[in-house]
This record gives sequence, C-alpha cells and structure tokens, in this order.
Amino acid sequence: MTDQPKIKVGVLGATGSVGQRFVQLLADHPWFELTAVAASERSAGKTYREACNWFLSADIPANIAEMTIQPIDTNLDCQLVFSAIPGDIAKPVEEKFAAAGYGVMSNVKVHRYDADVPLVTAEVNPDHLQMLPIQRKNRGWDTGFIVTNSNCSTMPLVITLAPLHRAFGVKAVIVHTMQALSGAGYNGVPSLAALDNVIPFIGGEEEKMVIESKKMLGTFENAQFTPAEFALSAHCNRVSTIDGHMETVSVAFHRPPADESEIVRLWQEWNPLPQQLGLPSAPVPPIVIRREPNRPQTRLDRDAGNGMAVSVGRLRKCDVLDYKFVLLSHNTVRGAAGASVLNAELMLAQGMLDGLR
Amino acid sequence: MTDQPKIKVGVLGATGSVGQRFVQLLADHPWFELTAVAASERSAGKTYREACNWFLSADIPANIAEMTIQPIDTNLDCQLVFSAIPGDIAKPVEEKFAAAGYGVMSNVKVHRYDADVPLVTAEVNPDHLQMLPIQRKNRGWDTGFIVTNSNCSTMPLVITLAPLHRAFGVKAVIVHTMQALSGAGYNGVPSLAALDNVIPFIGGEEEKMVIESKKMLGTFENAQFTPAEFALSAHCNRVSTIDGHMETVSVAFHRPPADESEIVRLWQEWNPLPQQLGLPSAPVPPIVIRREPNRPQTRLDRDAGNGMAVSVGRLRKCDVLDYKFVLLSHNTVRGAAGASVLNAELMLAQGMLDGLR
Amino acid sequence: MTDQPKIKVGVLGATGSVGQRFVQLLADHPWFELTAVAASERSAGKTYREACNWFLSADIPANIAEMTIQPIDTNLDCQLVFSAIPGDIAKPVEEKFAAAGYGVMSNVKVHRYDADVPLVTAEVNPDHLQMLPIQRKNRGWDTGFIVTNSNCSTMPLVITLAPLHRAFGVKAVIVHTMQALSGAGYNGVPSLAALDNVIPFIGGEEEKMVIESKKMLGTFENAQFTPAEFALSAHCNRVSTIDGHMETVSVAFHRPPADESEIVRLWQEWNPLPQQLGLPSAPVPPIVIRREPNRPQTRLDRDAGNGMAVSVGRLRKCDVLDYKFVLLSHNTVRGAAGASVLNAELMLAQGMLDGLR
Amino acid sequence: MTDQPKIKVGVLGATGSVGQRFVQLLADHPWFELTAVAASERSAGKTYREACNWFLSADIPANIAEMTIQPIDTNLDCQLVFSAIPGDIAKPVEEKFAAAGYGVMSNVKVHRYDADVPLVTAEVNPDHLQMLPIQRKNRGWDTGFIVTNSNCSTMPLVITLAPLHRAFGVKAVIVHTMQALSGAGYNGVPSLAALDNVIPFIGGEEEKMVIESKKMLGTFENAQFTPAEFALSAHCNRVSTIDGHMETVSVAFHRPPADESEIVRLWQEWNPLPQQLGLPSAPVPPIVIRREPNRPQTRLDRDAGNGMAVSVGRLRKCDVLDYKFVLLSHNTVRGAAGASVLNAELMLAQGMLDGLR
Repeated sequence: MTDQPKIKVGVLGATGSVGQRFVQLLADHPWFELTAVAASERSAGKTYREACNWFLSADIPANIAEMTIQPIDTNLDCQLVFSAIPGDIAKPVEEKFAAAGYGVMSNVKVHRYDADVPLVTAEVNPDHLQMLPIQRKNRGWDTGFIVTNSNCSTMPLVITLAPLHRAFGVKAVIVHTMQALSGAGYNGVPSLAALDNVIPFIGGEEEKMVIESKKMLGTFENAQFTPAEFALSAHCNRVSTIDGHMETVSVAFHRPPADESEIVRLWQEWNPLPQQLGLPSAPVPPIVIRREPNRPQTRLDRDAGNGMAVSVGRLRKCDVLDYKFVLLSHNTVRGAAGASVLNAELMLAQGMLDGLR
Repeated sequence: MTDQPKIKVGVLGATGSVGQRFVQLLADHPWFELTAVAASERSAGKTYREACNWFLSADIPANIAEMTIQPIDTNLDCQLVFSAIPGDIAKPVEEKFAAAGYGVMSNVKVHRYDADVPLVTAEVNPDHLQMLPIQRKNRGWDTGFIVTNSNCSTMPLVITLAPLHRAFGVKAVIVHTMQALSGAGYNGVPSLAALDNVIPFIGGEEEKMVIESKKMLGTFENAQFTPAEFALSAHCNRVSTIDGHMETVSVAFHRPPADESEIVRLWQEWNPLPQQLGLPSAPVPPIVIRREPNRPQTRLDRDAGNGMAVSVGRLRKCDVLDYKFVLLSHNTVRGAAGASVLNAELMLAQGMLDGLR
Repeated sequence: MTDQPKIKVGVLGATGSVGQRFVQLLADHPWFELTAVAASERSAGKTYREACNWFLSADIPANIAEMTIQPIDTNLDCQLVFSAIPGDIAKPVEEKFAAAGYGVMSNVKVHRYDADVPLVTAEVNPDHLQMLPIQRKNRGWDTGFIVTNSNCSTMPLVITLAPLHRAFGVKAVIVHTMQALSGAGYNGVPSLAALDNVIPFIGGEEEKMVIESKKMLGTFENAQFTPAEFALSAHCNRVSTIDGHMETVSVAFHRPPADESEIVRLWQEWNPLPQQLGLPSAPVPPIVIRREPNRPQTRLDRDAGNGMAVSVGRLRKCDVLDYKFVLLSHNTVRGAAGASVLNAELMLAQGMLDGLR
Repeated sequence: MTDQPKIKVGVLGATGSVGQRFVQLLADHPWFELTAVAASERSAGKTYREACNWFLSADIPANIAEMTIQPIDTNLDCQLVFSAIPGDIAKPVEEKFAAAGYGVMSNVKVHRYDADVPLVTAEVNPDHLQMLPIQRKNRGWDTGFIVTNSNCSTMPLVITLAPLHRAFGVKAVIVHTMQALSGAGYNGVPSLAALDNVIPFIGGEEEKMVIESKKMLGTFENAQFTPAEFALSAHCNRVSTIDGHMETVSVAFHRPPADESEIVRLWQEWNPLPQQLGLPSAPVPPIVIRREPNRPQTRLDRDAGNGMAVSVGRLRKCDVLDYKFVLLSHNTVRGAAGASVLNAELMLAQGMLDGLR
C-alpha cells in the first residue's frame, strides 16, 4: 500500500480530549495525511497551538501546531473526517459532511443506533461495514458515509467477548467498570470530585453498554443489523485514574467450556481481520493475557499495544455465572480515537475509501 | 447504664492502622476506659506518642499519648481486649488472653471460621453470641471468650442484605468492590502502586467475602452455626482512596419483590438490636439511603453516622439478577474497629461482660 | 454575650466553594443566625439543597437545606452579609449592600486595596477596623460598611510573621506555596490537570501575596493605611491536595534573633485580641508548633484548631536569609470563610455591629 | 563509534527503582550491552522477571526478562557496572568492584563527597573526570574507578545554573522542591502518606543540595576539587506525583544581567560537551524553555528529551534576590539512571573506558 498517495483526512472537534488523540495518532500516519483541523467558531482562525489546551504528555506534533483551525464546514480540504464533535450538535453536522461526499468516521454517539449506520469495532464486526451501500441509498448520499465506533467502555468488553461468543454463546454478562477521568473530557470531572473519591455513576453509560454491545456482537444479514440476544447488566464508576478503563466481568454462556484453558486458547489464537491485514494500528496480539495475579493494572498496562490492545487477567470460575475476569484498555486510544483510525484503515485496506471526493 | 463503673479495656496491636482507630474510638468512650495499649516488643516501653506513627487526621488523644506501651502479655490491667494483632501471630495470643480470663474482641481473621467462635455484625446476627457458653466449655475457659468481627468489605454487604434476606431470601450475589488504601494497613500499598492506578486484586479478600457473608447471614440453632445458602461471587479491587469501601451489588432473591420500593421500605424501617438498645456507637439509621443519582461518593459519604452507617444508592433493576445497588462504608470504622467496639457495647448492654476477670 | 439576640446574617454567593464553607460555619453559630442564602438568578427560587452541589464531607446543615435561595438583592432579611460573590461582579454589588445599610464582610478581592477599606486578619491588624467611620463618611454610607479579608495564601503567612515583625522587623521574605485544589473553586482545576501533577502558576496570586501582606502588616495612623516596608517574593504552585495550603518561608529580619528559641517563644506566647476576647472561632493557640521533623503535613494537620489555627514546623537557620520554616493552614476555613466569620465576631465583641439596619 | 564492539555492562541493585530505569535505558543501548543484572542474595538465582516487581509502564525488556540475577560479586561478566545499591552497603562493594578493575558509575551517595571521586553532571563539569588518574593512584587501583552522579534534585538545578554561573557568578540561591514519589524508591512512601498530602521534609536532601551543587559548579584545578562559593538554602518537599521533580528557584548573581533576555539567550545557546559530542543520551537542547505561563507541568513535561532534558519556565525578576524561575526534570531518568548512563557515554567517547578489564 506504500505506493498509494495518502488519503487526506481532517479532524472535527480537534481541540478536545478525543480530538487531541486523533491529532496525535494522525500526525505521522503512514496512510493518512492530516490536512485539516476544524473546531468551533471560537477557535477557528487561530493556530492549533493557540487554540488548543494540549494536555497529552508529549508536545503537539510539530507539523500540526501551526496549522490554522478551520470552522467545521464542508469545504475542508480532505476526503475523510474523524468526528469528535460534542454530542449535541454532531447529528446534523456529520450528516452534512456525508452528504457533501466526505467519509465520516464518528466517535460520537448520535448515529450509533441508526438502523443503517454501522457501529464497528474492527476486530469484532467488520462485516457490518457492508451496510454502507444501503446507507448511501437510504440517505441519497453519493460517496459519503457515516461509520461509528462504540463508547470507550463497551469496546474492550466486546473485544474480549467476541471470540467467546462465537464459540460458547454469551447468555448473560454482569460488567463493572472503573473508568478513567479522561473519558469525561478535559473539563468533565473537577479535581475536587476526583481526588480521594469514587463516583458510582456515569450518565447514560450503562445504557450504552447494553445497546452497543448487542449491536456489535449481533449480525448483519438480509441488509439489516440484528442485535445479539443476551442479558447485560452494567455498573459504571468513575475512579481517580488519568487514562485506562478497568472492568471486571462475570459471564454465563449457553455452552460453557469445561475450564479456563479453552477461553485462554481462544483469546490467544484469535486473529481477526485487522491483524490478518496487518493494519498499521492493529495491535498484535489484540488481547494481551496477563498471568500475574495482580495484573492488568491501570497505570502499568494501559499502553499495551500502543494503547490499542486489551489486557485481560484473573480469569477464573464465577460462583454465580460461569466465568469471571478483569480487562483493561486505553479509553481514548483503543476506546475512542484509535478505534476510529483502525476502522478507517480497515476500510482503506478493503478498497472502501476509493472514490471519495 | 451511667451508674456502672467503666469496663477497663486494652488494645492489642495499638500502633497499627486498625489499632489507631481503636484508640481514637475508645479514648473518650462512655462505657469503656482505655487502660492499656500493647504492641510488639519493638514498641513496648515507649510512650504511645513515641512509638506510634499516628496518621489519622486528628491528633493522638491527649489522655493516651503519654501512656506507656506494654508488651502483648496477659498481665494487662484490663478486662476486655480489642485485638488488631497482625494475622500470623494472632491465633495463640488471642487464645492465651481468653484463657487468662479476658474477653477478646478480635478484628483479626484467625478465629473467624472456628466452629465455636461467633463472627458478629451487631445489627445482623447478635444471636450468634449465644455460642459463647459452648465456646468456653469447649476450650476450658472460665470467663474469657473470643468474639470476632468480619472483614471490612463483607460487613457493609451483609448489613444491606440482612433485612432483604429475611424478607425475600437471597439466592445469588455478585459484588464488586472498590476498596480504600487504609484497608491494607499503613505500609500496605506503596504510593507508586496507588496513584493513577487500580489494582484488581486483594489477596484472600474474595474468599473471605464468600465465607463470612454466609456465616453471618446464617443461623445459630442447636448449638451450631449453619451458613446461609446462596451463591456469592466477588471481584475485589484496590482504588486510590484513603478511607471508604465502595461496592456495587447485583442480587437475586428466591422471592423477589415487585419493585424497588419494598426494598427501600425494608431498609428504612430496619431497626435492629443495637439501635433498639441505643448503643453509643450504633448509627441511627444504620442504613442511609441516598436519593441523588451520583451518591454515595467515597469522600463525601464515608463519615455518615460517624463512620458507622452504611450508605446505599442507585437501587434499580438488574437485567441479569433481580436488583442492583451501590453501597459505601468506612472500612476502618464500620468495617473494623468501630464494629468491634459496637459488638462490645452490645455484649455489655446484655450483661455478657459481667464477671470478666 | 449570650443574652443578646443573634445578629441576622446572610451569605452572598452561597452555593460556591467558599459559600458552602460560610453556610457550614454559620448554620449553628452562637452569635449569628443565618437567615438568608443568596445566589445567582439561576439558583434563586430553588431550595439550597436543590441549587447547591454540596461537596463538603458532612451533609448540608439540616436547618439550611430547605431554605429558599434568594437573588442577590438588598432586600435580604439580615443585617450583615458575608460575600463570596465571583470577583467580576462583586464590586458594585457589595457597595450597593453597604449603601443599603448592611455590614459587608467580603472574602472577595475587589475592595481589598481601596484606601478606605480595611483588609483584616483578626489576630494581626484588628486596629485597621478603625477606618470604618472614615469609610462611611467618604462613601456617604449610614450604617453599612465593607470589611475584607485577605486571600488564602497570604493570611497564614502574615499570622506567622506578625509577632516576629513586631519584635525583629521583617526585612525580606521568600515564600513558596503548595496550594490545595479547593482554593480554585469547585470547577477551578480539572482533574486531568491535578492528578499526578504540579502546576507552578496561579494567576494573580503572587501579586496578591505582595500587596496584601504589606497592607496587613502595615499601620493605621492618621486616618490612613501605610504598608509595611519589606521585600517579598512569592512562588505560587497548585498541588494535588483537596484542602490546606502548605508554604515554605525564608525570612530576613532587621534585628535577627540569636537563635530559633526566640521565635518559638514569640509564637507560643502570642495572645492576640481574638484569643483574649475568647471569640467563638478564635483558635487557641493561634499558631500550633509541630516538633516532628516531618510535620505539619497537609492531610494530617489542616484541621488543627477546627481549621482556624496555623501549623508551623521545621524552623531552622536559612543560609541565604536568616530563618526558614514551613506553615500550613486550611485555605477555605482559616484562609477564607472562617476568617470572615472571625472578623465579624471581633466586630460584634467590640460593639462595631451595633445599630446595623 | 559504530564499529567498536559494545562495552559489556552490569547493573548492581537491578531490581529496585533506579535499577529498573538502568535496565530500561541499557537494554537496547547503541554502545553498551547489558550482560549482567545483580541484586541481593534474596533475588540471586531467579530470573529478572521473577525477582523484579517491575513497575515502569512498559514491560520488562524481553532480552532481559529471562536473564538470571547474579549476586553482587566481582565475577560479573562485564567491564563497567552501574550501581544502584542501597546506600548503607554500597561503600565497600563499590570499592571492591573498582579494585577488581571494573569501572563503577555510581548513583549512590556514599562516595560523592570523597576528595578524589568526581561528582559529575556530564553537561556541567565533565572536566572533573580528570581526577580519575589521581583516584587510581591514591587507591592503588589498576583500571577500575568510581564516578558518581548527584542526587536527583540537585542535578537539574546545576544544569540550569551552570551557564549562568559562568556568565554572572551565582551569589545566592533559594530553591524549593516538589519532588516525586519515585525518588524515595518503590516502598519509600506509603500511599496513605502520599494521597491528598504534602510532606515538607526529605531526610538529608537539603544538605545534599548544598554540598553537591557547590562541588559540581566548582573547579578541578591543581589536582583537587574546589567547591563554588555561594550560599544555597533548600526547602525540600514530597508531593503526590509519580515522576518528575519540580523546583522553584530564586537566584542572586555577582554581576546580574540587565534583564531576562540575557538568561534566556544563555540557556538557548548553551551547547555543552555531551551535545557537541552527540552522545546517544544527550538531550538536544539540554534545557527546554517553556513560554506558557503555566508550564512546565510535572505530568506534561517530565518526559521532555526522553526524560533527559530540564524544562524551565516563568523566568522573572525576584523582589528579594535577582531572578526567579521554575524547573522540572525527570528524577529517575535525568536525575539518576540516565545521568549515569550519559556519564558513561561521555567517558567512552573520550576514550576513558579503554583498557577496562
């Protein structure tokens, strides 16, 4: 693929928490060239360095820092946009971009539940992208499209469940999250609410985990998505960590394996499409199995696979459901910007970005 | 009871994390007089102020600071001892004290599972104290005894389940804890392991939750304890908070109530023995029901009822079991030293401390 | 003073960080009755419980929780108002209240530097209150007045310097602060900026320390304030603590004492007016001297004297200036709301609140 | 230099906090080959993975994880050893290694103040290495030697002062540190002492800053070290950060520059020997000047220059001394292991490691 010219891409909402991750991941990407950073009117016209309260630990990429921020308008010089627009205004904006012929890789929830919009985790349900011709037809779009990725707590859960679901049939899941502060955005959680504290509530999060996990583990057949049928109950909590969502999971199966080794083997041998295709952002392996009794730990393991792998540990029998384990993933990389970028790589590798604008 | 002379009490292991809480709670107690602080040979002979790296936020109580620490020996000038001895040496020591005629209120796990040792949460299973005559007979003890209280994560769980178990019959519980650093003792968790981190493992804790909750919710009949029969699965995690264990709980009942209101009513109307007796350390109410969607929170609510109440919130239906909720309690007060003191008050109020030494 | 009817007081800006402390300190005050809580139009009309995101660890005082929040208008039913209004709108509002006959105890900076407005730390410069008749005359106010207290980092510094300044003459001070997050207000510092971080900058703080310390350690003579003459250089930093400003201080004197003991003696024997008068909020002693090498510590010592005392430690020679030491005080109690309340108590005890409205 | 065979190196005390950094920095070094990891008897014989409680965020380097830990003995298969031995036993051990012909790059304080042992920061006083022939002669060593680097808080201070000292003559310094938890080693600070806290004391640290800064900014002439003559006063504090020491500095000069720009220019143009030689670990630039008012910040800037650069900011006039500023550097990289490695690179580039064993 190295002979191809790079696809020009833009980031919508480039100054926010997820927007900064997009910029970081795209500034030096082998297949994409970041040619447009767009943000609210308040920021437009300033350089990215001026407008952005950059809070990632490395500096702003030098080739982006002096780019001028543009308004979020459909005259951006690019073919594909990564959307991290604040939720309330995202719906019409993303649709306008798709109508104008842009591919839209959306990290926002507004279109996730639309019947003709794929909600994709590249390793889990790449086949859902086949909905796009129908989407275009439904909406009268020419080359444009909207592809979404799930929320940051659901994604690592479905990644760990996907190979098990195919083998054993997930029947019920109780998941408990300990989510990092960055998941709420830079101004999301005041320090006085975070330090020496746990907040056992994240608005809308538990509902998202239910709906999104079923859509992603469900099927695309006969031109429609059919959600997987299982029960899921989520307890979502905010804890005092910078990055990295830790989750404990109890799961029951229709056809439970005899022991843990079958689950471990499935995780180890899992080689989904992004890894087969050798996509630049695809972590190898996608699931890192920790053997130590006290791992994964948030600070030590969140960057596994450049933040794109899901780390699991403590797999053992559950006295109420069948098995239980712990998982960890980086919420703004694997759970947000990185997942969108991986989806875009998957589409490019499959020719799905040909002919864009 | 104000006319009675105070019972003389001592604290074994007085300089440690739980020992400091004992000292704080007993320094000005209406029924008990703290006359002996005992600790390891290394500390013995020093004043409490010298030997103790006091780390509670108020100062060392003035009447205790200059007391001389004594070795942990059965010549302490007191009738009752509160034990916070490190686990590995506690077993013979506690037995020696009981044999010497002391009442032993133990916060240590070594005797919790003995067939003739009550494991008591004062609000939940005060009838288990009726085992003591049998214990004395078994062990050839005269006036001495050993009464234990449970570990810090189990206690608030059984408090919230107790009134529900009687009404609906607990069938299964999945509990997930987010436990404070103080639960591991002062040197338990290095700061580099705590800051910006979650550790999804606490050695032995999950097993304790299973065994201890069943013993306390079980019965004392025909001179023996019979554990309650239900399935319990625990996920125990260490998070970056000073004090206060937060737990999320999903529970299934044999006879589930039609809706949340029946549970709320049971919690509200629950008036167990310590509260009926007006014991000095008994919180009123024992269970504080928070109505806000984002409460209880660790830092804001751990001191409810002077650290002796359990706060609950977010009661709602569970898609996998029947109901789910959040609970919080202060792990070194309600979950440790305070519970021991309350047990001792309960015994005193019932005449069970008469005739000690 | 117990025979007097209580003075009716109100809090302006009652829902914010400092406002909550005012409510907490005034809800059960022996001399003042909190009869009015006022806040922005957005909150007005709601109950205090509804409007206030209470984040102090104890609950909202029960007698205040159901009070209706009023707009910040001069028809409040009270005689004295404690002002915690956001800085930008405070100036005209506080003046309007004073003109309407209210006493205004202001925690806001807008009037601190006015030539006829006392900036008072009750222990340090109570004589500055004698400016009030001149203030009233200047401004054409009848019974009303404005009295301010200093910012939270300056106050403990001048408390520790005051007895030394009188004895030895302060010549130069280099002070370095490590300030708590609550000093910036509830939404002041995002958690992502606080955790695992130090921010070596607090806007305007260093300038405030220079001006305010000189005004408070200066004189009131011939109807005017004359600032003390010394050099002060401040380095202000935000660290990851909830409450409690820690400061390290190097100080040079015009007539330096021969050794540390003279300083210690002055601190120990200091018995300023509020303590002489036995004011309800006056800490005894005002300065707590810690002897341990590693104290004061923020979490352990910030509540000394109910949060009103200043803790000092590590007094020793400085190789560049003369002496150096560490101080700690509670920034929203001693450094803000508590200081205002203490000023009001001082005025009441001296008859300066007679005849208000 | 690429044609040379790599120098074989070992790490003494390889499992501790600084030892882990050595392993991380040496595992894939262009000039050194890590052939021996040595630790206490308790660890010897285990693999590095087994013995080491690795707590850096990346995993143990794969080529080191399975190496067998050896006892700290002079039969290690290497030419140069990096010493991170706990202080109390380091003195005889390091001397034994030097006597056996090993080069010893010591991060430990025991030899820092010896009259014939260079205390070197590669950018600041590389000429001090010329003491080595005298050291060998004094001690009767053949090829071996001991070179030390300073403690973690002193090093970035002397780096920022070095170019200024040469130009303006440092007369007096007041420095205040806010030091990270990793500086105390993995078990150094319990989490209960770190969270929501500042500890204004680090044993021995202030004395080290005085002595070591004067030795490093001093001269090597006539076969002896002469310390620089200036006054330094240090206030050392432990704050709740993982890595990165922040320091605020006030400095007076003998010949103060007219304004900040001269200082900035000196910092910018400083091109010391390691940078001239292009050493692999030498950061370019050595001093990163931040222009934002609120930078450097610990979490954002500690990794500048791969953790080897010192970030400075907020340069401004000081009302007591001449100028003041803020500095930040990574305490276990720049301030410890990285500095030792850079010193070794400097020696190798100058031929000073030729002929070792």
